[in-house]
Amino acid sequence: MAGNTTGQIFKVTTYGESHGIGVGAVIDGCPSGISIDNRMIRKALDKRKTGKSVSGTNRKEPDQAKIISGTFKGVTTGTPIMIFIPNKEADSEAYKDIADIYRPGHGDITYMQKYKIRDWRGGGRASARETAARVAAGAIAKALLNKENIRVDAYTIRLGNIRVNRYDFNYAKTDPFLCPDRQASEAMEQEVEKVKKEGDSLGGIVQIIANGVMPGLGEPVFDKLDADIAKAVMSIGAVKGVEIGAGFDAALMKGSENNDSISQNGFATNNAGGILAGISNGDDIIIKVAVKPIPSIRLEQKTIDEQGNERRVSIKGRHDISAIPRINSVCEAMASITLADHFLRQRAIR
Amino acid sequence: MAGNTTGQIFKVTTYGESHGIGVGAVIDGCPSGISIDNRMIRKALDKRKTGKSVSGTNRKEPDQAKIISGTFKGVTTGTPIMIFIPNKEADSEAYKDIADIYRPGHGDITYMQKYKIRDWRGGGRASARETAARVAAGAIAKALLNKENIRVDAYTIRLGNIRVNRYDFNYAKTDPFLCPDRQASEAMEQEVEKVKKEGDSLGGIVQIIANGVMPGLGEPVFDKLDADIAKAVMSIGAVKGVEIGAGFDAALMKGSENNDSISQNGFATNNAGGILAGISNGDDIIIKVAVKPIPSIRLEQKTIDEQGNERRVSIKGRHDISAIPRINSVCEAMASITLADHFLRQRAIR
Amino acid sequence: MAGNTTGQIFKVTTYGESHGIGVGAVIDGCPSGISIDNRMIRKALDKRKTGKSVSGTNRKEPDQAKIISGTFKGVTTGTPIMIFIPNKEADSEAYKDIADIYRPGHGDITYMQKYKIRDWRGGGRASARETAARVAAGAIAKALLNKENIRVDAYTIRLGNIRVNRYDFNYAKTDPFLCPDRQASEAMEQEVEKVKKEGDSLGGIVQIIANGVMPGLGEPVFDKLDADIAKAVMSIGAVKGVEIGAGFDAALMKGSENNDSISQNGFATNNAGGILAGISNGDDIIIKVAVKPIPSIRLEQKTIDEQGNERRVSIKGRHDISAIPRINSVCEAMASITLADHFLRQRAIR
Amino acid sequence: MAGNTTGQIFKVTTYGESHGIGVGAVIDGCPSGISIDNRMIRKALDKRKTGKSVSGTNRKEPDQAKIISGTFKGVTTGTPIMIFIPNKEADSEAYKDIADIYRPGHGDITYMQKYKIRDWRGGGRASARETAARVAAGAIAKALLNKENIRVDAYTIRLGNIRVNRYDFNYAKTDPFLCPDRQASEAMEQEVEKVKKEGDSLGGIVQIIANGVMPGLGEPVFDKLDADIAKAVMSIGAVKGVEIGAGFDAALMKGSENNDSISQNGFATNNAGGILAGISNGDDIIIKVAVKPIPSIRLEQKTIDEQGNERRVSIKGRHDISAIPRINSVCEAMASITLADHFLRQRAIR
Repeated sequence: MAGNTTGQIFKVTTYGESHGIGVGAVIDGCPSGISIDNRMIRKALDKRKTGKSVSGTNRKEPDQAKIISGTFKGVTTGTPIMIFIPNKEADSEAYKDIADIYRPGHGDITYMQKYKIRDWRGGGRASARETAARVAAGAIAKALLNKENIRVDAYTIRLGNIRVNRYDFNYAKTDPFLCPDRQASEAMEQEVEKVKKEGDSLGGIVQIIANGVMPGLGEPVFDKLDADIAKAVMSIGAVKGVEIGAGFDAALMKGSENNDSISQNGFATNNAGGILAGISNGDDIIIKVAVKPIPSIRLEQKTIDEQGNERRVSIKGRHDISAIPRINSVCEAMASITLADHFLRQRAIR
Repeated sequence: MAGNTTGQIFKVTTYGESHGIGVGAVIDGCPSGISIDNRMIRKALDKRKTGKSVSGTNRKEPDQAKIISGTFKGVTTGTPIMIFIPNKEADSEAYKDIADIYRPGHGDITYMQKYKIRDWRGGGRASARETAARVAAGAIAKALLNKENIRVDAYTIRLGNIRVNRYDFNYAKTDPFLCPDRQASEAMEQEVEKVKKEGDSLGGIVQIIANGVMPGLGEPVFDKLDADIAKAVMSIGAVKGVEIGAGFDAALMKGSENNDSISQNGFATNNAGGILAGISNGDDIIIKVAVKPIPSIRLEQKTIDEQGNERRVSIKGRHDISAIPRINSVCEAMASITLADHFLRQRAIR
Repeated sequence: MAGNTTGQIFKVTTYGESHGIGVGAVIDGCPSGISIDNRMIRKALDKRKTGKSVSGTNRKEPDQAKIISGTFKGVTTGTPIMIFIPNKEADSEAYKDIADIYRPGHGDITYMQKYKIRDWRGGGRASARETAARVAAGAIAKALLNKENIRVDAYTIRLGNIRVNRYDFNYAKTDPFLCPDRQASEAMEQEVEKVKKEGDSLGGIVQIIANGVMPGLGEPVFDKLDADIAKAVMSIGAVKGVEIGAGFDAALMKGSENNDSISQNGFATNNAGGILAGISNGDDIIIKVAVKPIPSIRLEQKTIDEQGNERRVSIKGRHDISAIPRINSVCEAMASITLADHFLRQRAIR
Repeated sequence: MAGNTTGQIFKVTTYGESHGIGVGAVIDGCPSGISIDNRMIRKALDKRKTGKSVSGTNRKEPDQAKIISGTFKGVTTGTPIMIFIPNKEADSEAYKDIADIYRPGHGDITYMQKYKIRDWRGGGRASARETAARVAAGAIAKALLNKENIRVDAYTIRLGNIRVNRYDFNYAKTDPFLCPDRQASEAMEQEVEKVKKEGDSLGGIVQIIANGVMPGLGEPVFDKLDADIAKAVMSIGAVKGVEIGAGFDAALMKGSENNDSISQNGFATNNAGGILAGISNGDDIIIKVAVKPIPSIRLEQKTIDEQGNERRVSIKGRHDISAIPRINSVCEAMASITLADHFLRQRAIR
């Protein structure tokens, strides 16, 4: 398969299925001398569990992630960092009834088409559980970026039809939806409750901001910084669209509107989203991410089973109403991993 | 730098600057036994020159692209295919006046920040001229895909504020804007004329459709087919956004609306854009691409020069009003290269 | 660091230190549908423990290697296979006395020069313990190759000054030195006892034979099959030389002697070692590997410590007298991993 | 095929066949700010033509190599450097008679087995002509290494049965065989004349010395510096064996003999060949390379043709008697490319 590794210098490889023994990551290429520990990883994983209201699950205990290799006395040694996160509460019974059914909007059918075999327990490798490994690896990337004063955060700017009108990013950090607009957040809460009753689910838009990125990161022409970010973010299960800076709005502007004029104080605007010709320009890197609604819904849907029979399926069990705001930490992780890699790539040639 | 190669098995490396000796590509990993010739490459490059009306240039002669290696009696041998496209009409004089000025919206400033030196003649490596090499390599990818009955086309569905209302893709192939709506195309023509007079430029949206893709292409979890397509397309200079299937609209739908239900006749809808869990599902692959307006405009803009002095710049010379529809063939090329690579990747493990 | 992954399609990433929590590997790109289980891995690891007589250790229990992901009901699913091997009996006390001393012939000094920090417990990542992960991954590669009737074995053809005169490979499989000459094996036994008493150690030569390899594997020009084998084998800690076929003897022959003439029955001789122009020709692939003597010896040696003081060191504790025959299974593993990768690479383009 | 690129950061891709339009290389990842020009490349290519006496050809003119991209005013810009070397004097007529015959010792048969088609003119891609591209790329690597005071040279220490007894490396630079022993060189001359009359050919051993390499280069565990060097050198057509430091002699030593003891003045001996645990230790890096005799000989040999008929072949035309000393510059190039890559890799993580 060979698609489970990302990065050129800061390389992350993940493994594991939803209802197997555990999931995890190997981070190869992390420089020596960086302080990391189990607690840091667990904290990142806890953040991935924010947003109680959208959640169908009530997992009580934190993920017991553990650094298996690559550190000595709490400091990276330059050798591969292996992180293991054991699976818990893996109740595969609920999946037995639909073991041979292709759930709409899921990868059940395509995994079968590709591999002729699939682990149907909890979605196997295609489960959102896989993203825990990304978040763990992202915590290492963040530790590296923090030394360079680079900060990466992801906020919720839309949930279903609710969009934000204020951008108080400081407030957003403690908002249950990681939303920078308290009023919008309250509306989101109500929307979630309503949709939960309907047995349906919600999508939304996440905005990632990378602050403090030095100019010069990104490799023309195929490995442009925005190209690698687009790939990293689009590789997250539920993501269907990515914008850099003005994004699709740039398509509607004229050149005189879209160009960011330059003065001795820097750029007047940031339609470029911090990236020009694929290279960071020192401004905030702005990424918008379209997240589709959770495909697992209670409402009955038409589908087929492995034998090709037409079936109807209603997904029981405890499912989230929206990938937001849990996916935000995954977005942060993927952006951080990409930036860490490009930071090291640039160091090689400067 | 090491960012000028893309692909894992079908590997494309490009080289060359706008006003240097030429541009080109090395395609490594193309299977043996495929018929290709110079004419095929040149035809692809000619297609890249459609859209006379948006063009500021009047290049009369076709690109004299030449296959330098990798074929024997018109058939690929499995060795690297090198294609060379000599530069012509390279008039660097026009650039001398602005040699030390950072043009807004261009990579002048970031190339300087990254490399401490830059070839200012015609934009150097950051020029759209570089995409000729992509189109040439894309022609080889298309020859490979055609053998599998896969077709990749790119249409214009928006130019500035003009959007299409009809989707006659057959008509679109001969439309001057590669637009599937004749009426919209005529409005685009008028918009171009208007903006040309203003000394400004236009962006737009391109839709790529890959038809005939077999199920099973794409490698979980980081090298998902949509992730690699997003990267490939975002690596094109003017692109600021990418959507797969419903894209950002998916963020506004509920699960019951967005999920494509399945019957014995296939998927009822195609919000997924032909990709589920990163793997092709046999449906058309639908990609939408946001193209920013050409940054080179006659209207005066504020900027700085290499010494940090504030300057005003008005880009003279012959510049296109829009990257569309020329960029369409580049979009086709990048999607084709990505699909060719994943087709071969899947062949390795099936 | 980014040097802990090998392979293009069949990709192996290893992690772990000698006296850490454990070592292991992630195998990405293994096709689905191959039967593997914990027992198979443990058997391969047990084989790595042959050669009691050369061993300074008396580890009683087998390695409790465990497949953590990538299989479903005992069959590979196409997702990453993670294997974890917990460390046992890790007694770091013996290393405390020499924690700041650079042992001659070891990587202590170069790890410090490279990373400015090192895990001195048992050699850290530079320990032979790391090769357990290679052997585990090699067991998966072998399972894949076995389906194609490819067999890879490694024999001892020299230990110190004892060289073999007979080549009974069937006998060798059960010989304590994996030596194809019983008489030589007995002399090796005596030599080991003698050297053990002296407090010294021994090197030797291993011959790897890959039988049943189909013609066509290997990718010109840089990824020739022999080039990738040379790299794979040279990446094993104690290896200082690699030969393909006639090897250094080919340097002394004339063309008429060295060329393998061809008839309808195949090649008359096999000086090429089964590889022509970097591509397998269907004959046995013959690789010879020079193994240096174990650097850890009881005899006193001159060295320096981390502060630059001159010191004398005598390595106490239980150390092997020779890497042979334990290294043989590592040689098999590395050759198998390389062949598995090239087998899949060829499948992609044929 | 995807085997025509080498390196992780300093990436070299080559292309071209013996009797096609030309051969060449794209070097991606070379830092900006390095002075290079056409003359430097041509000089390196001229050096590849030393050793008149072993040569069957009398090519009068130098290779007209040309830098096509990647420089501005004689200085690298960080963009891909493309070098093109047009083919000359390509007389394919001589090959027509043996177009369907598999020459013993050549890749004719394996290319056919792999690709089902081959360019038989002059050996196509398997020709030694391909190494001109390596030497050209090596010249860029050398320019990068020279800035760091690293020097890479390759000497002839054996030709057939003639071995050297003295090591005057200063003298060697102007010796016709690049041999450090004038007396041995004269014997080599006589041996060549004798073998030429017999219609046969000679092999030999080349020693590469890299001086001035800083400690810390090389990436454990698979991309050890010696592993990557072994691959690089073994990827040269005629090479059948590689040794680092004491090489196969290390297999015969005891630990007390082979270990290089350390004092405040450095290592007492250099059996390690400058590399410990895969990482450079600051000493000279010593590599020995076994070169097989040229397979093209006038003496009649048994073989088969493409149809499987048994044939006899006597290679007419002008062929070299030995790959030495021409291969020496290729060895230098491959070692230099590998060191340049590892130098940049280390810069990324230090």
